[in-house]
Amino acid sequence: MTALANIGVVGLAVMGSNLARNLARHDHRVALYNRSPERTRALVADHGSEGTFVPSEQLEDFVASLEQPRRIVIMVKAGAGTDAVIDQLVPLLDEGDIVVDGGNAHFEHTRRREAALREKGLHFVGTGISGGEVGALEGPSIMPGGSQESYAALGPILESIAAQVDGEACCAWMGPDGAGHFVKMVHNGIEYADMQFIAEAYDVLSAAGLSAAEIADVFREWNTGELDSFLVEITAEVLSQVDATSGRPLVELITDAAEQKGTGRWTVQTALELGVPVSTIAESVFARSASGDAAVREVTRGVLAGPDRTLSVDDRRQLIDDVRDALWSSKVVAYAQGLDQIRKASEEYGWDVDIATVARIWRGGCIIRARLLAQISDEYAAGGLRTLLVAPSILEGLADRQGAWRRVVGLATTAGVPVPGFSSALGYYDTVRAERLPAALVQGLRDNFGAHTYGRTDRPGAFHTLWSGDRSEVEA
Amino acid sequence: MTALANIGVVGLAVMGSNLARNLARHDHRVALYNRSPERTRALVADHGSEGTFVPSEQLEDFVASLEQPRRIVIMVKAGAGTDAVIDQLVPLLDEGDIVVDGGNAHFEHTRRREAALREKGLHFVGTGISGGEVGALEGPSIMPGGSQESYAALGPILESIAAQVDGEACCAWMGPDGAGHFVKMVHNGIEYADMQFIAEAYDVLSAAGLSAAEIADVFREWNTGELDSFLVEITAEVLSQVDATSGRPLVELITDAAEQKGTGRWTVQTALELGVPVSTIAESVFARSASGDAAVREVTRGVLAGPDRTLSVDDRRQLIDDVRDALWSSKVVAYAQGLDQIRKASEEYGWDVDIATVARIWRGGCIIRARLLAQISDEYAAGGLRTLLVAPSILEGLADRQGAWRRVVGLATTAGVPVPGFSSALGYYDTVRAERLPAALVQGLRDNFGAHTYGRTDRPGAFHTLWSGDRSEVEA
Repeated sequence: MTALANIGVVGLAVMGSNLARNLARHDHRVALYNRSPERTRALVADHGSEGTFVPSEQLEDFVASLEQPRRIVIMVKAGAGTDAVIDQLVPLLDEGDIVVDGGNAHFEHTRRREAALREKGLHFVGTGISGGEVGALEGPSIMPGGSQESYAALGPILESIAAQVDGEACCAWMGPDGAGHFVKMVHNGIEYADMQFIAEAYDVLSAAGLSAAEIADVFREWNTGELDSFLVEITAEVLSQVDATSGRPLVELITDAAEQKGTGRWTVQTALELGVPVSTIAESVFARSASGDAAVREVTRGVLAGPDRTLSVDDRRQLIDDVRDALWSSKVVAYAQGLDQIRKASEEYGWDVDIATVARIWRGGCIIRARLLAQISDEYAAGGLRTLLVAPSILEGLADRQGAWRRVVGLATTAGVPVPGFSSALGYYDTVRAERLPAALVQGLRDNFGAHTYGRTDRPGAFHTLWSGDRSEVEA
Repeated sequence: MTALANIGVVGLAVMGSNLARNLARHDHRVALYNRSPERTRALVADHGSEGTFVPSEQLEDFVASLEQPRRIVIMVKAGAGTDAVIDQLVPLLDEGDIVVDGGNAHFEHTRRREAALREKGLHFVGTGISGGEVGALEGPSIMPGGSQESYAALGPILESIAAQVDGEACCAWMGPDGAGHFVKMVHNGIEYADMQFIAEAYDVLSAAGLSAAEIADVFREWNTGELDSFLVEITAEVLSQVDATSGRPLVELITDAAEQKGTGRWTVQTALELGVPVSTIAESVFARSASGDAAVREVTRGVLAGPDRTLSVDDRRQLIDDVRDALWSSKVVAYAQGLDQIRKASEEYGWDVDIATVARIWRGGCIIRARLLAQISDEYAAGGLRTLLVAPSILEGLADRQGAWRRVVGLATTAGVPVPGFSSALGYYDTVRAERLPAALVQGLRDNFGAHTYGRTDRPGAFHTLWSGDRSEVEA
C-alpha cells in the first residue's frame, strides 16, 4: 500500500491539474480525484513521473488516502459546483480536517461556507490563487483565509509551491473566513485598472502615430524601469505579435470588445457597499462593458461629432515619457483605492489584514506582480499609512509626475482619445488633495429639496435652512 | 357612519402625511393609520379641513374603513418595516386588494413581495415617488409598477395627485413587479450625476474667481435656457443664501462632505450586474464617498503636489458659456447611461418599460425635472433609439458643444480642479464614438495570461495564440 498522501486535489481541469503537479514537484504526496476519472488517469499517465500521485476514482477512497488532518483543495468552477463537492466531502471527513476552496469564490460565499464547516468541527479555507495556468504550475501568488490554526497545518505546503521573491514565498495568511478571497477579488479589480491604463497608454501613443511595433519597444523599455511588471512585459509581447496571414500586427485584428468574468464587477459592488471610492476600477469595468456594447457602438461610431483622434506632438520622446508618468501615477491611484478597500473590509469584518503582507505576496506569481509592489510593501511595513498616496516615496513620485499626467489627459481630451482611467485617477487625486470640495454645494442642495441637513465648518451640529420659509437656519 | 374611504395610507411621517393630504385635497376619502396614534390625531387636527380623512387607531378598523378592492399605500422606512406592515396587513385583506409600497425599496425586494402577494390573490405595487416632502404634498412624479389590472384601479387616483405638465399627469404605469422601483432607483442615480456636474460647474467657476453670488446669477441665467431645471433653480437659491451671522455665502460654511442614502449606490451595483456602463453615476457616488473620507483628506490635503486650483481665463463670458455646454453635455451622457440601464433591465425582466413615458413623467414633480426631459421624451417617442446620444436634436446639441466640453475638462485638469463627472462623461462619449478601441489589446493580454481567447475582425470564431509555444494561432 502507498503511503498516505499529504494533500489532495479535487477537480483536475487545467488549474487543478497544474496545482497538483506543482505540489508533486515539491515532494508532497498528492491525492487526486476528479468526477470523471479520465482526467485523473490522464494526469497520472502524462505527468506521473513528476512526483507521487495517489489517484482515486471514488471520493471515499480519495478521502481515505489522505493523512490526518486531511488537507483537501477543491479546484472546481466557483458557485454551485463548489457547494456540491463540499456536500459530498463533509460526511466523509473527521474533525480538524481542512477543506480549501481555490476557486474565485465571492468572499461572502466563503464566509457562509466557513461558518457552516466550523459548526461541524472542520476548517474551511477560501484561498485566492493568482497567476493563471502557468502560475499554478510554476509558482502562483496564494492568498489563503480561514482559521490561523488551519494555516499552521496548510501554510508550509502552500508556501513551498508559491512564487518566491527574494527568498520569500508569495503566500501568507490573510485573515479569518473571507479575507483570502476578498484580497484576491481586489487583486483582480486592480488588474482591471492596470490593463485599462495600459490600453489607454497604447491608444494615446497610437494616436500620436506610433506603430504597434514601436509601442512594443516603448513598453519593453518601460519594463526595465519603474513600470517593470508582468503586464507591461506581456504588453510588449502582444504588441509585437504579427498575424501570420496578413503580416499586420495581431492587435489590429483582434475584436475590440473586452470581456470580463465577474471579479472586477464584484470589487466595485463591494466597494460601493463599504463606501470606498474605487473609481479607477469602476471606469475600467465600465470601459470593458462599453467596448462590448456592439449595438450602441454601431449607431454612434462615426456619427457623434469630435476630433479625429490625431494627436500632433512636436516631441515624441516627451510624449512617451509623459505617458509613462501618467501610467505610473494612475497605477498608484488604483493601488491606493484597492488597498483602501481591503483596509475598510478588514475593519468591517474584523480580519486584521496586514496590507504590507498583501503587497508582499503580490510581488511575484500573480498577474499584477510589479516592481512597484515591493515599494508599496516597504512603505506599508513602515507603518501608519492611511493612504498609499502619502507614503514618502510615492508622494515624491507623484509630485514629479503629476504635471506630465495632466498633459496626457489634456492632450487626449483635446484629440478625442478616451482616457477614462487616467482622468478618473487624476480626478481622485485632485479630489483628495483639495482644500475645499464643492460637496458643500451638494449638501446645500440636499438640504434644500430633502431637508437632509448639513454640517458647518464653524461649529458642531446638524443644520437646516428653512428654504421655503423665512430662510433662517435652525439646528436639527 | 362615514362613507368608506377610497384609499388608505399607513405610516404618517412627513412623506406619508403629505401624500395623505394631497389625496384628500383631490377629493379622495383617505383612511389613515399610524403605529402610534398621536401622528394620526395630529394630522386630522392640523389638516382635517383639507378634505375627508377616516382615521383608525387599529389596523383592523383601518382595513374595514376602505372600499373594495382596497387601495393601501404603505409609507414607512424601507426595509424590515415594510415587511412588518405587509405581514400585519395581509391576513386582513381580501382577494383583489391592492397594497402599494411608496418607499424607496430595492426593486429586488419589490419583486419578491409582489410574487408573495400574488400567490395570495393580492396585488402589490412598488411605486417610486419623487419630489421630496413638497412634492408629496403638491404633486410628485409617481412611478408605479405591478400588475396592469391594479393600475386600472389605482392609476386614476395617483394621476390625480401627481404633478401635471402640459395637462399630462407625471404618473404612468411603468411595468410589472419591480419596474416602478427600478425606474425610481435610476432616477435617483441620475440625480446624483446631475448634482455632481452642478458641483463641478460651481467649482470651476469659483476657481476662475467668480464669487458665490456671481455664480448664483450664472445659474439663474442658465435656468432660463436649455438647462432650465429644478436643480439648477435651487442651485441659484443655495448659492445666493447668505449666512446671517458672518455675512458670508452659506455654501462656504457648509461642511464639504457629501452624504448619501443608498439609491445611487444601488443604481451602480445593479448596472454592474446588468453590464451597463453608468460611469458618470459611479463617479458621482464615489465623489461623495471621497469627500466624506475625512481620514484620507486630513493626510492628503495640502500634502499632495499639484496646481493651486487657480484658473486664469482671459474671457470670463467664454468660460461661463463653455461650462454651461460641459454641464449640458455631461447631463445628456448621464441620461443616456441611466435610460440605457432601464432599457436593459426591462429586457432582462420582461417589463417592456416605455422609455418615452419614463422621460415624460420625469418632466415634472421629481428632483431631476428639467426642460431637457421633454426633448428626451419626444425623441424616444419618435421610436427606434438605441441610445439617447444619437437622437437627432441631442446629436446636434453635442456636436455644437463638445468643443467647449473638452476645453473645460482641459482647463480644469491643468488647474488641478477635480472634474471626475465631466471627464467621465466625455470619456464615455469618446469611447462609444471611437472607430477602434484599445479593448483589443485588453483581449490580447487576457489571451496571453489566461488563454481567454479573442475574436478577430476578419473572420468569425474564437482564437488563441500559443504564447508560450511557437506563437502560432489556433481556433478555440
